[in-house]
Amino acid sequence: MSAHNCNSRQSWKVSASIVAKRTSNPIRAIVDHIKVKPNVHKSVISLALGDPTLFGNFKIHQSCTDAIIKQLNSFQSNGYPPSTGYQHARQAVADKFTLPEAPVTAQDIILASGCSGALDMCIAVLCNEGDNILLPRPGFSLYQTCADSKGVEVRYYDLLPENNWEMDLKQLESLIDDRTATVVMNNPSNPCGSVFSKQHLLDFLAVCERNHLPVIADEIYCDLVFSGNTFYPLASLTQTVPVLAVGGLAKKYLVPGWRLGWIFIHDRNDIFAAEVRDGLNSLSQLILGPNSLIQAALRDILHNTEDSFYDDTRVQLEANAKLSTEILSRVPGLRVIVPQGAMYVMIGIDVAQFKDIPNDIVFTEKLLGEESVMCLPGSVFKCPNFIRIVFTAPPEVLEDAYNRMAEFCVRHHI
Amino acid sequence: MSAHNCNSRQSWKVSASIVAKRTSNPIRAIVDHIKVKPNVHKSVISLALGDPTLFGNFKIHQSCTDAIIKQLNSFQSNGYPPSTGYQHARQAVADKFTLPEAPVTAQDIILASGCSGALDMCIAVLCNEGDNILLPRPGFSLYQTCADSKGVEVRYYDLLPENNWEMDLKQLESLIDDRTATVVMNNPSNPCGSVFSKQHLLDFLAVCERNHLPVIADEIYCDLVFSGNTFYPLASLTQTVPVLAVGGLAKKYLVPGWRLGWIFIHDRNDIFAAEVRDGLNSLSQLILGPNSLIQAALRDILHNTEDSFYDDTRVQLEANAKLSTEILSRVPGLRVIVPQGAMYVMIGIDVAQFKDIPNDIVFTEKLLGEESVMCLPGSVFKCPNFIRIVFTAPPEVLEDAYNRMAEFCVRHHI
Ligand SMILES: Cc1ncc(COP(=O)(O)O)c(C=O)c1O
Ligand SMILES: Cc1ncc(COP(=O)(O)O)c(C=O)c1O
Repeated sequence: MSAHNCNSRQSWKVSASIVAKRTSNPIRAIVDHIKVKPNVHKSVISLALGDPTLFGNFKIHQSCTDAIIKQLNSFQSNGYPPSTGYQHARQAVADKFTLPEAPVTAQDIILASGCSGALDMCIAVLCNEGDNILLPRPGFSLYQTCADSKGVEVRYYDLLPENNWEMDLKQLESLIDDRTATVVMNNPSNPCGSVFSKQHLLDFLAVCERNHLPVIADEIYCDLVFSGNTFYPLASLTQTVPVLAVGGLAKKYLVPGWRLGWIFIHDRNDIFAAEVRDGLNSLSQLILGPNSLIQAALRDILHNTEDSFYDDTRVQLEANAKLSTEILSRVPGLRVIVPQGAMYVMIGIDVAQFKDIPNDIVFTEKLLGEESVMCLPGSVFKCPNFIRIVFTAPPEVLEDAYNRMAEFCVRHHI
Repeated sequence: MSAHNCNSRQSWKVSASIVAKRTSNPIRAIVDHIKVKPNVHKSVISLALGDPTLFGNFKIHQSCTDAIIKQLNSFQSNGYPPSTGYQHARQAVADKFTLPEAPVTAQDIILASGCSGALDMCIAVLCNEGDNILLPRPGFSLYQTCADSKGVEVRYYDLLPENNWEMDLKQLESLIDDRTATVVMNNPSNPCGSVFSKQHLLDFLAVCERNHLPVIADEIYCDLVFSGNTFYPLASLTQTVPVLAVGGLAKKYLVPGWRLGWIFIHDRNDIFAAEVRDGLNSLSQLILGPNSLIQAALRDILHNTEDSFYDDTRVQLEANAKLSTEILSRVPGLRVIVPQGAMYVMIGIDVAQFKDIPNDIVFTEKLLGEESVMCLPGSVFKCPNFIRIVFTAPPEVLEDAYNRMAEFCVRHHI
């Protein structure tokens, strides 16, 4: 007899399932062990969470609020949508994002409970237990959580800080074998703040093409790129590699709590047509999709919000990125990898330059204890001796935090 | 080499995962095969969907609309809630539902993406692949979808129409073996519209107790019971059997599209404390919980909506139930099992009395083709030769539909 929940039914021993046990969040595993308390004499500044709404400086556009209120007052959007989303909402996403080089129709869109829900479905539909999946390192930790949960072996390909966090494609290709189900690529990147060049994406696609490897492209930060950089949707650069691209309202529309994400099925050669489309439809039936009000408001949100709103967000984030780079580049022991987009910057910690800071985890612990500034150690992204900073706070808050970090680094420098 | 997605990487063959393939909705499997079109000369009346918002007669209370608008205008609730829900929202659920006999605190509540999401998490946390789970027959089809998806063997216990759809506890107990992970019970019942007596629930708990079988209690229709019936929360009747109870806003608050459900962890003897609580927390991290606006509005929705609102809903549903019973009981060939709660009635089809109606599927097909009335065949609930009617339509619509059904039955009667 193998593992089961109630030993021979003689006692009340109820175990959690293997799936529940292997579903773990690497961020929590590290952060929950940080027992240090902030310095009570200094206000706490958290630069740890990728939530642009935290400080109140990034507010949603009135058109989004109005769009929801309109739905509430109509009483027409409180019922069950189809599990893949209202047809008109899927159409609204298609209309907004279709491109001549990567056309999508409503049939190619599946709405999900956040981009997280979209990612979980994409990984679930492509990977069997015992398969392996290629994930970026450093990378967004949910990829691993989803893969672990399904018993899918994780193989990390490296992003190279010295090359603006480009993928190490040679290493990536060397990881592929017969059981490699898919590769997740993330552009612009959390935690790196990097934006891939067209050539790099083409090189990546060539690897996928050669190995017949379908791609999950996490493009949730698609429009958040800074001047001098261009965002290329991966699917627009290939006619052959099948791509499940994911996105959502969370970042661009500043509403991560609304939990509305989507999958684009880019499949010009009907490679997903045989099974993967149906599989995604089936999986969507388990929880029946995202909130109906947000779905019903989606056309207004996507099509009536003035472009200047995103431009403002981008401009503010770019100014914050610049401020972060300027101040932190001058701090001894730190190495800033200049961000090109998104809302993150990774900063190398040269531990050899510090007397009593052996690694990134100790760095973030001491920084919190002494300066009440919180940021995540790179270790939570499998990238030791870096720290990740979220630069969505207002400039004066960032300056305060960075000045404290500078004092901290000087104090601990050899 | 075992099953994988890309045969030796020489071609573009991408399969869906085993999990996606085994995630199927039994309703769709039957309903999608019904190729009959409604009669173009008669307006279509659908009594098939358990969505009380469809006809516009059941409208949400203004307090719910106001509660959401308040959150929208505050700009405070657009960010990420914790994955198990805002603390204050969990507290609001606890405050509303705690009972002296079944006390819960915020720590015992997990918010989920609808009651569907709650059920999926409960099944996921308790069952391993290869375990078995006991499900009611007839029963809500999502239970099977969730179990199949996880490779959990489904064993059905019967609900007995001649006993007001009480569980066949003898048979239920006979199905239990060492690999039985949990039993799902549903009260009040979809599709039966039944409400279990206190004694029946105690008898059920005795079986669980004897066999150390934890229970998933689906009590989403908890307050929708008709006069003469009392709803007893299962957990309030036991001090020993650990219960995961699920519920949500969908039915009582008439907002199924809002996708807000919850799990109550009833565990007075710390049987779930060792692993199951953590497991639920871990699983919640995959999609990060329900919409933040609805969560933030939860206290207002649960605590500021006047009781008369639910009473009204209940009274209307009860009147509809009565109307349904009265008209349909007089129709030859039909046998109404009088509903005691929820929004459903199961009606037996005595196929021997019809000339050309061999089963429930043909009954619903012909009824649609001739009378443009839609209802679900009992087969989708594993209960052949019954049909399920949802009686949320306005009385005049129900009457119209029932009169058509009566003519239909007379026409096909021997
Ligand atoms: C790269 C990346 N993908 C996906 C997500 C999840 O997005 P959502 O909030 O829509 O689930 C995040 C959130 O931080 C992210 O950084
Ligand atoms: C018995 C039962 N449980 C759960 C659900 C799902 O509820 P939700 O819409 O909150 O996912 C339903 C919906 O019809 C149901 O009938």
